[in-house]
Amino acid sequence: MTAVEPVRVGVLGARGRMGTEVCRAVEGTEDLDLVAMVDEGDWLFSLADADTQVAVDFTHPSTVADNIRFCIDQNIHCVVGTSGIDSALLDTIRGWLEPKPELGVMVVPNFGIGAVLSMRFAAQAARYFESVEIVELHHPNKADAPSGTAYRTAQMIAEARADAGLGPGPDATTHDPDHARGAVVDGVHVHAVRMAGLVAHQQVMLGTAGETLVIRHDSLDRASFMPGVLLAVRSVASRPGLTVGLESVLDLD
Amino acid sequence: MTAVEPVRVGVLGARGRMGTEVCRAVEGTEDLDLVAMVDEGDWLFSLADADTQVAVDFTHPSTVADNIRFCIDQNIHCVVGTSGIDSALLDTIRGWLEPKPELGVMVVPNFGIGAVLSMRFAAQAARYFESVEIVELHHPNKADAPSGTAYRTAQMIAEARADAGLGPGPDATTHDPDHARGAVVDGVHVHAVRMAGLVAHQQVMLGTAGETLVIRHDSLDRASFMPGVLLAVRSVASRPGLTVGLESVLDLD
Amino acid sequence: MTAVEPVRVGVLGARGRMGTEVCRAVEGTEDLDLVAMVDEGDWLFSLADADTQVAVDFTHPSTVADNIRFCIDQNIHCVVGTSGIDSALLDTIRGWLEPKPELGVMVVPNFGIGAVLSMRFAAQAARYFESVEIVELHHPNKADAPSGTAYRTAQMIAEARADAGLGPGPDATTHDPDHARGAVVDGVHVHAVRMAGLVAHQQVMLGTAGETLVIRHDSLDRASFMPGVLLAVRSVASRPGLTVGLESVLDLD
Amino acid sequence: MTAVEPVRVGVLGARGRMGTEVCRAVEGTEDLDLVAMVDEGDWLFSLADADTQVAVDFTHPSTVADNIRFCIDQNIHCVVGTSGIDSALLDTIRGWLEPKPELGVMVVPNFGIGAVLSMRFAAQAARYFESVEIVELHHPNKADAPSGTAYRTAQMIAEARADAGLGPGPDATTHDPDHARGAVVDGVHVHAVRMAGLVAHQQVMLGTAGETLVIRHDSLDRASFMPGVLLAVRSVASRPGLTVGLESVLDLD
Repeated sequence: MTAVEPVRVGVLGARGRMGTEVCRAVEGTEDLDLVAMVDEGDWLFSLADADTQVAVDFTHPSTVADNIRFCIDQNIHCVVGTSGIDSALLDTIRGWLEPKPELGVMVVPNFGIGAVLSMRFAAQAARYFESVEIVELHHPNKADAPSGTAYRTAQMIAEARADAGLGPGPDATTHDPDHARGAVVDGVHVHAVRMAGLVAHQQVMLGTAGETLVIRHDSLDRASFMPGVLLAVRSVASRPGLTVGLESVLDLD
Repeated sequence: MTAVEPVRVGVLGARGRMGTEVCRAVEGTEDLDLVAMVDEGDWLFSLADADTQVAVDFTHPSTVADNIRFCIDQNIHCVVGTSGIDSALLDTIRGWLEPKPELGVMVVPNFGIGAVLSMRFAAQAARYFESVEIVELHHPNKADAPSGTAYRTAQMIAEARADAGLGPGPDATTHDPDHARGAVVDGVHVHAVRMAGLVAHQQVMLGTAGETLVIRHDSLDRASFMPGVLLAVRSVASRPGLTVGLESVLDLD
Repeated sequence: MTAVEPVRVGVLGARGRMGTEVCRAVEGTEDLDLVAMVDEGDWLFSLADADTQVAVDFTHPSTVADNIRFCIDQNIHCVVGTSGIDSALLDTIRGWLEPKPELGVMVVPNFGIGAVLSMRFAAQAARYFESVEIVELHHPNKADAPSGTAYRTAQMIAEARADAGLGPGPDATTHDPDHARGAVVDGVHVHAVRMAGLVAHQQVMLGTAGETLVIRHDSLDRASFMPGVLLAVRSVASRPGLTVGLESVLDLD
Repeated sequence: MTAVEPVRVGVLGARGRMGTEVCRAVEGTEDLDLVAMVDEGDWLFSLADADTQVAVDFTHPSTVADNIRFCIDQNIHCVVGTSGIDSALLDTIRGWLEPKPELGVMVVPNFGIGAVLSMRFAAQAARYFESVEIVELHHPNKADAPSGTAYRTAQMIAEARADAGLGPGPDATTHDPDHARGAVVDGVHVHAVRMAGLVAHQQVMLGTAGETLVIRHDSLDRASFMPGVLLAVRSVASRPGLTVGLESVLDLD
């Protein structure tokens, strides 16, 4: 048996909170080699000098476009976890990739495999149940309610139900002076709990006469994103072009 | 060993939904004898004729006062599950009982032992946690949100916290345009889920940095009230005077 | 717009527990017509006389083969919920169907859509988490532990993990004299709770450092199988040949 | 209003994992003053020199007895979190305290208020439900199953049920070849889940026909013990003699 060469990985934003975790995670594997760590003030070309095959970007909305441009230019595949990538930038990236059909760029808003799976399962199940509601639970320092993930989950559920010709679930509530029924996002009720002792949790509840299905996701720390990052790093080279979201690299058949 | 005589029990409202269950439950025990079943159109005196020792009343707000009066007059202890007993009537009952210091009347708004225990536990724990929130979940035919039980639980929690000098839990929410944070009852957030497949459920969640405690109660059918009814029937004779609520007959030391 | 004719449905075992529910469920829809109800002692040909398009069989292992044979012979599509159909009988049915390429037979071991979805989700997720365990919870009258569903779920999880090259989850237990760690089915720990007040519930728990995913299914009564039966009835005519399991007619993309 | 002087607190084992947390917690309060931090190699008399009123001991089974002896001798109240205090040592401590009726020593096996409350609630509720089972869930590095807390909880439940004349819950299981029903501790079934992503969790489930009650406790980090430590420090001076367990200082009426 011929030994497979480890993939050569470089990290952009290597001294940030997420970048530090990524460096540690890559070093903890056998099939990946950490060959470049770049942060503010470092020379981008050190990525190329180290023969980086896959770059992971956890930097800043203001620099991420330049970084992606550089990687594509240097024939380096790219996994992007930096936030703030809008659809205009996605189009721009597609344009940059056109002359390089063998190159892959993966833009991933959420590396939590559990979060991605629960959203997908919730949307799949939503067309088979009369009722669906979301309870999201977070630490009390969060400024927004509901959470962005709950908002996105509600949208995905609403789309799936619309596709299946389903409207909102049954609800005879006529008296709710204090909004105990929570927010309604695209027809889906969303409840936000804020409590000391919690981190980030979400529960999608589905029900039909006689049965209920609950999909619950608990995220306790940043370490939980690393399996998703590694999965993206391992997949990007075999997925030419632009890919958005971790879901497409999960094997869900 | 001398055999203990079974207690002679009569049921008022014996053909109603709850009354029927009570008759069946009493017949299913060895220490209680069902000696009288009375409903609309029947003669109240059949209770006395059958030497009833304890009467159970599940009738109607319009007749319950007369029934209690009759039982006290005939020296029959009384367990009352009929709703609509206000504090004026409670005072009246106290007056009726004065000349009969050996007689007991027990008025019980909720015979669900699990519900009563969870409210009590929630209130006891509430003084030891920074945050408390309530999620109540019911079938979609319910007209009110939040449920009466959730409302009462929030009040009990708020009283316990006030006693302990605690204010509302920490909450940094600044943006909640759609009321995802639910109702606020006496400073306690209450969330109401309405879903096909559910019956009647309540979850009190308590949290402090590093730990959470959840007390969850699920009520699936009317049968769940019978242990509470039987407990009251067995206790009333040894509790002279007026007793309100099942809690006082639960042994909670 | 031309009105679509309702599908003509016949029920075999129409007076049994499940058959009765199926008749009621079919009558409650607009796109299905209940045209024949057949039970022990009735004439099978009444199905054909009523121009039945789809037959639903909830009879007995001893008669189900004859019933299927009859339906195929009469060009009636067939949904089979009767238990006891082994792989030999499945092969026989395939043989019967050969000369009738337009005809569909659907054999469904579990009509609970929630149960089918949770098993599938559990198997899909199992390849992305280090640990997976199953807790199944049932009423105390159940004779077997673990439940058949838990057993089957564990097998599906084990297959998915083997495909992904994963072994059993981490477990440092060295001292467990009383088997608190439960049963191990194909490398997956399965715990069985038996408790008054429960019906039929299953919880698949998956975990990786920093995050957990829980898929919980609660089945409260037989009514919960009807949406699955109706889905099968509506799908069978457009699925020629033999189909096993409800999963294949669920839209899970 | 006269300002109350802060209580002067000294910590023994101040550089250990728990001791460090205690020092930080005491410093974070206004009514307590951290006046002495003592660890291996330091002079015990520095406690007395600093006029310590309450000492907190998180040291080692081999030194804890000497430390307690010293504190009593120096008229310092004592809160002991060190493990390994058996009933013989408790008797010895009682002897030491005899000549000092005003002095308090509190020995606390578990400072988790949530854990203590859930055990107590479980035992109180256990006499009112037909069935009780425990599911404890921990990280996969734990060597023992079931956990000590689950073991103790089962014992408390069994005692409460014996007091109430209750035997084990109903269970028709006749076929359980692989021990899916878990361990049986004093008649109570205990199930142990070991999973990556978990920390320390316990769920007591109680059920009667038609209703269930679940008491769930989740402990995520050591910080969760600090409220219990502070509660003990604040209470010990007003509780002369030996007190065992945090429960006695919780206000649970």
